[in-house]
Amino acid sequence: MKHFTLQDILDAEQGFRRDFINCLSGYKSLNLIGTINQETKVTNLAPFSQVFHIGANPPLVGVLFRPHSVERHTLENIRQNKCFTLNHVMASFYKAAHQCSARWKISEFEATGLKEEYKDDFKAPYVSDSPLKIGCSLADQITLSINETVLIIGKIEHVYVEEKALGEDGFIDLDKLGTVTSSGIDAYHVGKRLGRLAYAKPDKPVKEI
Amino acid sequence: MKHFTLQDILDAEQGFRRDFINCLSGYKSLNLIGTINQETKVTNLAPFSQVFHIGANPPLVGVLFRPHSVERHTLENIRQNKCFTLNHVMASFYKAAHQCSARWKISEFEATGLKEEYKDDFKAPYVSDSPLKIGCSLADQITLSINETVLIIGKIEHVYVEEKALGEDGFIDLDKLGTVTSSGIDAYHVGKRLGRLAYAKPDKPVKEI
Repeated sequence: MKHFTLQDILDAEQGFRRDFINCLSGYKSLNLIGTINQETKVTNLAPFSQVFHIGANPPLVGVLFRPHSVERHTLENIRQNKCFTLNHVMASFYKAAHQCSARWKISEFEATGLKEEYKDDFKAPYVSDSPLKIGCSLADQITLSINETVLIIGKIEHVYVEEKALGEDGFIDLDKLGTVTSSGIDAYHVGKRLGRLAYAKPDKPVKEI
Repeated sequence: MKHFTLQDILDAEQGFRRDFINCLSGYKSLNLIGTINQETKVTNLAPFSQVFHIGANPPLVGVLFRPHSVERHTLENIRQNKCFTLNHVMASFYKAAHQCSARWKISEFEATGLKEEYKDDFKAPYVSDSPLKIGCSLADQITLSINETVLIIGKIEHVYVEEKALGEDGFIDLDKLGTVTSSGIDAYHVGKRLGRLAYAKPDKPVKEI
């Protein structure tokens, strides 16, 4: 195996280091975050791979924002009007999702042709084609002193999910939804299920469910 | 689409809510975290799906710990001796990785047969069969006041990666590594690559690389 020390990583060329370190955690969740500027009413849509589960009761989700990045419109809009949407990406529109990361002067919805949608009086726009959409209110924000990244914590206010993918036990089949996952800074993948496994106990063998 | 409001989620049966909310972010990174108790020298190995990129320079990774969960040994060990390892999971041992989440009285290495490995004087154990292993030192820890989850921030000290999967540009091919991704609380998947896309610019069409 190839071995890299911390010093090797720090000495590496910047582009190599960025690609390499972004790949290390493994496959990442991919969501398009939809927001709207309260004053200008210009919408914004940006792909994020740093979205993760924080808690189920109350239902909370975390999003990590790099400082001084192109994603600043998203962060500004969330701070301004306290809400945002998360939208799963499908293979049919992952290229448009990627193109949302360019520095557009107009709304990414307009620029990429992804259709915006408003539901149940929620202020932020959803992505019409997304098979799983979540409306979040801003619950908390924490700046990590170690590198000034900002952790936004959203409370889940609304979930819309394709019924075909929802099980009676609450499990959502991402293969059926067609959800895309990302790796590094520019790679996209779909998933292929290996199995679901029953709650693990020391005195029982592993069991598929 | 099926619509759930926050109230619907809060009113749902606990098991349904747990499965449902854990599925919402999409595919998740999956890593086995290896630690050792400094006093007893008993090792610990636990599967985590809440591992994410925090920064590339310096290289930082975040791990979110639920309070009062079975993962407490891992958290205690990290706080005690300030280091841990992250190990990608392959399809060949995802069932053993899942079985590490049971409440064992002995080391999960011993219980599941996953072989532990020590490298370059690093104190925490790696998983021998893992195709990508990371040694981290404890850089910071933050308790999220909203629900008492603990965010551990690790500085990447060592990376070991199968050379066949590492590109000249620093990109690591997770398909080639055979890395497994998880969804919800009990589902496991491998990835199938759709493509890598060039840096997005407003005046250029999307391009595969």
